Amino acid sequence: MKKVKRGLFVGRFQPIHKGHIKAVITLMEKVDELIIIIGSARKSHDLTNPFTIGERVWMMRSALDEAQVNPSKHLILPVPDAIMHSVWVSQIISYSPPFDVVFSNEPLTRRLFKEKKITVENVRFFQRKIYSSTEVRRRMLIGENWEELLPKVVVKIIGVIDGVNRIRELAISDSPFGSKKVV
Amino acid sequence: MKKVKRGLFVGRFQPIHKGHIKAVITLMEKVDELIIIIGSARKSHDLTNPFTIGERVWMMRSALDEAQVNPSKHLILPVPDAIMHSVWVSQIISYSPPFDVVFSNEPLTRRLFKEKKITVENVRFFQRKIYSSTEVRRRMLIGENWEELLPKVVVKIIGVIDGVNRIRELAISDSPFGSKKVV
Amino acid sequence: MKKVKRGLFVGRFQPIHKGHIKAVITLMEKVDELIIIIGSARKSHDLTNPFTIGERVWMMRSALDEAQVNPSKHLILPVPDAIMHSVWVSQIISYSPPFDVVFSNEPLTRRLFKEKKITVENVRFFQRKIYSSTEVRRRMLIGENWEELLPKVVVKIIGVIDGVNRIRELAISDSPFGSKKVV
Amino acid sequence: MKKVKRGLFVGRFQPIHKGHIKAVITLMEKVDELIIIIGSARKSHDLTNPFTIGERVWMMRSALDEAQVNPSKHLILPVPDAIMHSVWVSQIISYSPPFDVVFSNEPLTRRLFKEKKITVENVRFFQRKIYSSTEVRRRMLIGENWEELLPKVVVKIIGVIDGVNRIRELAISDSPFGSKKVV
Amino acid sequence: MKKVKRGLFVGRFQPIHKGHIKAVITLMEKVDELIIIIGSARKSHDLTNPFTIGERVWMMRSALDEAQVNPSKHLILPVPDAIMHSVWVSQIISYSPPFDVVFSNEPLTRRLFKEKKITVENVRFFQRKIYSSTEVRRRMLIGENWEELLPKVVVKIIGVIDGVNRIRELAISDSPFGSKKVV
Amino acid sequence: MKKVKRGLFVGRFQPIHKGHIKAVITLMEKVDELIIIIGSARKSHDLTNPFTIGERVWMMRSALDEAQVNPSKHLILPVPDAIMHSVWVSQIISYSPPFDVVFSNEPLTRRLFKEKKITVENVRFFQRKIYSSTEVRRRMLIGENWEELLPKVVVKIIGVIDGVNRIRELAISDSPFGSKKVV
Repeated sequence: MKKVKRGLFVGRFQPIHKGHIKAVITLMEKVDELIIIIGSARKSHDLTNPFTIGERVWMMRSALDEAQVNPSKHLILPVPDAIMHSVWVSQIISYSPPFDVVFSNEPLTRRLFKEKKITVENVRFFQRKIYSSTEVRRRMLIGENWEELLPKVVVKIIGVIDGVNRIRELAISDSPFGSKKVV
Repeated sequence: MKKVKRGLFVGRFQPIHKGHIKAVITLMEKVDELIIIIGSARKSHDLTNPFTIGERVWMMRSALDEAQVNPSKHLILPVPDAIMHSVWVSQIISYSPPFDVVFSNEPLTRRLFKEKKITVENVRFFQRKIYSSTEVRRRMLIGENWEELLPKVVVKIIGVIDGVNRIRELAISDSPFGSKKVV
Repeated sequence: MKKVKRGLFVGRFQPIHKGHIKAVITLMEKVDELIIIIGSARKSHDLTNPFTIGERVWMMRSALDEAQVNPSKHLILPVPDAIMHSVWVSQIISYSPPFDVVFSNEPLTRRLFKEKKITVENVRFFQRKIYSSTEVRRRMLIGENWEELLPKVVVKIIGVIDGVNRIRELAISDSPFGSKKVV
Repeated sequence: MKKVKRGLFVGRFQPIHKGHIKAVITLMEKVDELIIIIGSARKSHDLTNPFTIGERVWMMRSALDEAQVNPSKHLILPVPDAIMHSVWVSQIISYSPPFDVVFSNEPLTRRLFKEKKITVENVRFFQRKIYSSTEVRRRMLIGENWEELLPKVVVKIIGVIDGVNRIRELAISDSPFGSKKVV
Repeated sequence: MKKVKRGLFVGRFQPIHKGHIKAVITLMEKVDELIIIIGSARKSHDLTNPFTIGERVWMMRSALDEAQVNPSKHLILPVPDAIMHSVWVSQIISYSPPFDVVFSNEPLTRRLFKEKKITVENVRFFQRKIYSSTEVRRRMLIGENWEELLPKVVVKIIGVIDGVNRIRELAISDSPFGSKKVV
Repeated sequence: MKKVKRGLFVGRFQPIHKGHIKAVITLMEKVDELIIIIGSARKSHDLTNPFTIGERVWMMRSALDEAQVNPSKHLILPVPDAIMHSVWVSQIISYSPPFDVVFSNEPLTRRLFKEKKITVENVRFFQRKIYSSTEVRRRMLIGENWEELLPKVVVKIIGVIDGVNRIRELAISDSPFGSKKVV
């Protein structure tokens, strides 16, 4: 079997923005196959995690198609959070084809993989302060121009699922689940 | 089989207060059977959820008896939180007899049901700022008159279970569970 | 607070049959309030547990109404299985108003409650071999007269939910869940 | 947004065989995008579920590449089992982009989707008795020719992960997990 | 820090018998510290797992004291089953001080550790057919001499917890949990 | 069987400090055997729970050895959090040999045991404001002298696992798990 170099790009993608797509394109040059792990698969309908995993898969797939990224060179994988942080890396390993390197800037993600002796490299993000999911959610909440930060097709999907109203209603909720989270 | 119109009244009821009982009486006029969903069944012994699901069932049942509400027209159902917000409505459906309408003012509850194309109506609460579980818990904590907000039998039950001391001890706890929640 | 004597009647009720209803009526004479625990709340769509918890609540409530059982003297409570048998009794306690006695003939149920020093009494069932949920499911599967074993309204509910076909389809399933259970 | 017709093909794929690949090719003609749900994502290392979800994703992806199936027309999604059968369909919906039809011959899968009013169609499998995962596992266990039933690249992957020895060792295990399952 | 060689001895110990104690003594000669993992910590009150984890810890500790095994050279650790077999090794690693070798004859346990590149060695058990937990449970069930297979103090503990009656009652149970397991 | 008086000492021990060791020594004089429950076994890699359960077991065992505490008089038991606070005491009971008294100053722990009619006694801690795990974590984070608060061997273990860097990286993390916790 020919050896394939695979890399993992890990995020929650709440939602996918233009910076993510640029990063995917750059990272795909470094490996034969890029596995895009969409984490926190069970979370949705809270302020830091407004979108379901299915919606995020849909956004990612559509945005990569729109950007004409080669579909045979990447793989999108939803992964739920582990019940223990200390087994999360093992869970990622068991959800994915074998991989050689992890791309992430996030300190906890980097630390967890490095404690298991897995190579971790930085991702160079484009204008990180603006192209950020937190910024997108903030703009949605207060009515600023969030659309310019997202691929066109993601803007359309958010329209179809009425996503901006969802995030605004979450912001005023005192839910029966009893937990309110900040942006 | 004769068609029965059923409505769902969803809350955490931490604890049941006079406003809830008035709401139940009003809502029962709109449907043949009112199903009272007591949510977050697994939660207790934290500051926003001091009472166990059994205590809340006991309070609800006793308060409705005290108010001489017809017991053949309502049904009390404890329901645990779902592991994913996005399947919570499906879980409610599988816990309950079939229903036609949901009564709730809570934005997240309303949104989740509406995304599944289920009819949601508002509840008109009596003096909502005062008759509120948050207000009851606040008064218990600082020693103001909480008793006037609750049905008499609920006051008695809280006495039997030593509920006021429970809530005060929770407030000073640095628990082995490592999470402290605000009122 | 006036002391109320409460008893627990525990079962899975897959489905409710005439023997259950007779037992409820008899047991209600022994206590002030009978709490009917419908266990294994999460199970459905398998051969020993074909019906959802909501369907079983619906059947129980309707059958007790049909039998004109006083609705202020009983309470129907769905309870999920515990993650550990050894904490199941504690979970029942936290789901229910306080109780004095448990009615059950089932050896494991009896043992678990007795190990926690709770009084357990036998239930006298009417023609136990015939009026049994296992027998009902067996007859459904092979097309014998199951209707005669159930309250009329339960027969109607099973018609509405197409329950007999469900149980037959389960019998031939090689499910994606990978587990096939015998009757 | 242009309306895309999506279909779901649901299975456990323990392991992927030639019949699955033929079915995927046929089904892709009926829809714009085929979503391949690999179920029971948490199961592995038992006799009916020997392979991890990551190994099954790897096999599926590689086999579709080998068969030169257009990668922009399908999407592979791992999905864990739900805690309740009755919410499984809702969980699938929340894991996937929106879809119009489900392809399955499996009675429980068909029933669960139909109870939620979702269109289900049959899959025509090629020589179903021989091209079956159960048959593959049986041959692996007793040393018959299993390789002829699988795409070449899947045979190679099973070699890399030493899959045949795994399945044979599982067969003689009296595991600390205390449960032994038959093929 | 001085390097300590640690070994893991993994079992369910349902219940602890004389063969286990002999094995512990032998294995302690091979390492500086022996970590005794009592697995399936959540299981109890079923026919293959009659005893709670607390009872098994109690038996193990008492039997090792009775055999005058040096208490500073071993460590007893209860560990629950993982939600996925494929992360079980990672969970063991996160529950235990660092270790160098695993002692086990059980094929699945051996395989799972070896797939993670951890050294596994055989345990030489004394008269394995007779000194076996399965045999002990079988004798308890049918009333043969089970006492001769166990350390004296374990016999006493089983008396205190009325363990033989427990196992016999489990054997005739048709539990509300709906699953009956064979010895 | 000779009656043994056992006491429970419950904590999270994130990390173990000198005050804990002094407390263990004092408490061991009050009972025949002290059972040290290390709670929140599943938590690690967050700011209030930086260390895995295995690391905490390792620290506790090593620190008690260093202090030459008699190893036959104590037992270290990791216990996961319960899914419901209201069954946590029952879970502790099922994880432990029988016990007579619980030692704790923590209000929620005290309350939960007292509601189940179990005797609870105070622990007299040495210089509680300084010898506290919260203080240790705070000092680690900002670079003050944390070493003086811990047994020497615990300082070494934290060196081996690179614990100080772990806690600092957690502090700047915006994790894929989406939750940031304060010290």
